[in-house]
Amino acid sequence: MVTLAVDAMGGDQGPRITVPAVLQALSARQDLRVLLFGRQQEIAAAIDSAPYPSSDRLQIIHADDVIGTAESPSLALRAKKQSSMRLMLDALDEGRVDACVSAGNTGALMAISRHVLKMSDGIERPAIVSALPRRDGRHTFILDLGANVGCDSEQLHQFARMGRAVARVLDSLENPRIALLNIGSEDSKGNDQVKLAQELIRADSQLNYVGFVEGTDLFSDRADVVVCDGFVGNVALKTVEGLARFILAEIRSTFSSDWFGRLLAWLIRPYWRRIEGRINPGHYNGAALIGLRGVVVKSHGNAGEAEFMQAMLLAARYAEKKLPEQIEQEL
Amino acid sequence: MVTLAVDAMGGDQGPRITVPAVLQALSARQDLRVLLFGRQQEIAAAIDSAPYPSSDRLQIIHADDVIGTAESPSLALRAKKQSSMRLMLDALDEGRVDACVSAGNTGALMAISRHVLKMSDGIERPAIVSALPRRDGRHTFILDLGANVGCDSEQLHQFARMGRAVARVLDSLENPRIALLNIGSEDSKGNDQVKLAQELIRADSQLNYVGFVEGTDLFSDRADVVVCDGFVGNVALKTVEGLARFILAEIRSTFSSDWFGRLLAWLIRPYWRRIEGRINPGHYNGAALIGLRGVVVKSHGNAGEAEFMQAMLLAARYAEKKLPEQIEQEL
Repeated sequence: MVTLAVDAMGGDQGPRITVPAVLQALSARQDLRVLLFGRQQEIAAAIDSAPYPSSDRLQIIHADDVIGTAESPSLALRAKKQSSMRLMLDALDEGRVDACVSAGNTGALMAISRHVLKMSDGIERPAIVSALPRRDGRHTFILDLGANVGCDSEQLHQFARMGRAVARVLDSLENPRIALLNIGSEDSKGNDQVKLAQELIRADSQLNYVGFVEGTDLFSDRADVVVCDGFVGNVALKTVEGLARFILAEIRSTFSSDWFGRLLAWLIRPYWRRIEGRINPGHYNGAALIGLRGVVVKSHGNAGEAEFMQAMLLAARYAEKKLPEQIEQEL
Repeated sequence: MVTLAVDAMGGDQGPRITVPAVLQALSARQDLRVLLFGRQQEIAAAIDSAPYPSSDRLQIIHADDVIGTAESPSLALRAKKQSSMRLMLDALDEGRVDACVSAGNTGALMAISRHVLKMSDGIERPAIVSALPRRDGRHTFILDLGANVGCDSEQLHQFARMGRAVARVLDSLENPRIALLNIGSEDSKGNDQVKLAQELIRADSQLNYVGFVEGTDLFSDRADVVVCDGFVGNVALKTVEGLARFILAEIRSTFSSDWFGRLLAWLIRPYWRRIEGRINPGHYNGAALIGLRGVVVKSHGNAGEAEFMQAMLLAARYAEKKLPEQIEQEL
């Protein structure tokens, strides 16, 4: 049995997305329990209008406050102690749940997580990690995706160690290949930060460091873990999302342009579903905040129902694998 | 008539790609002349084995030296005065050609261009600019794509002004919308560099500044010009390339998995060609080094024949539009 704490109020549409996603996940997995944090009335209304049955494995915990997307993280940390996000993290800290999921304000989620859960020993700052698909059917883990707007080389070194742990735990890799994201693969390329980080990572005998990689290599099998600062990683990840959606839209509109195209689109559906399953960014929703003493998964703010459910299942998987303990052990 | 200087030796495969691309371009455009710089013998051999006729509009200029991809730009600047890249840029400086094209070492191309051609008045550093496709059929210009590994906010402001000029000249936009690439659209997001750059750009009454955009917005119509530092821009552009190639490969292999898929792939060819024309990164090959007193276009090092020809045609277009003069006028 896995118990998830879910922030019902997070994301662009709050309970209208999170509540049906929770009910769908509870229907799909009998070994799941959910504590749902947020405004009782709004949640109840969303349950009533959802096309899924309610469940006795669902418990609603009322929270008056909501943290807005544009709110200052430090202010949210100090002033919003009765918010859905805060109460959700308190529940994880008190051991009442195994993992947390929110589609809310990333900065606030990070600040409150750090405050409530605390960092693992030896880790200064959390990082956000997610996986990108590769041609060989495996993944490349990339971090940091935006927990830190600027990182020094020491932090990049810590991210490399955390990334190694994530790839070992989640993809059962014995000795994951670690790379640094740069603007060229030669040693002379890049800024001081990545050059210095390369020295630190190379000198670390525990890490199987394979060198600098470029943006083109993110979808290749050159590395299992790619490390970068949060600004660069966030731009890269969101560029991936933007381009994938652009390409999917271009393909759809090209086939919709005439009747023969629409017929062909109908014929290729089974192939297309397989392709979309691999390239639609929604299928990769959910990024973990790591370095913390607890599993916290951030969903995209504009995630749909199925996508939010993906983030929940990811959180359940991380909790089952005891990711934070495994990371601590690796370090 | 446009005269291009082409570095025959640049790129992963040198004359084996550049020479047939030049011959193909000369066949396609009767108003084109090319001065081809490089090792006479290798060029002659490539001409003999190319499937295109030679042309009296082609002139070969022998250059003994070649600048390698991994070579230090400053060393190449000082020591390689008889290299194909250097002689090509000298020809532009002396007014013998209208524009230069090279697929060689980007750092060396930038260093030698700055030294030989000099910067436009009021511009400290060149930037690399390219265009990304959008759903509405127009482009978003993005700069810098890697000319500078670190930029201060003043430089980002200059890039915004240069980007405005490029969009006005190339896309005939009266008042292009300028944005800064960041990890969130709210004013509180990002690092000091982008926050300070936002103040400078906002205060510049000539610029139609629309705020921060994220990676997801690069393919939307939120802005016509997106400004970022060269590290971030290079990672974003190469991530675009990597993902586009990944998606194209996934689609091809899914349809090749059985005979019905292969039949469907054959049936959808006319639609597929239109789609690929929009999303294949090769069709967007060629990025301009701007801020210099001359048109210099950088082709991707691994460009194929058709792609290198794209970069040449882009250089011809920039020369016809007198891009450097237009940028100077705008500033």
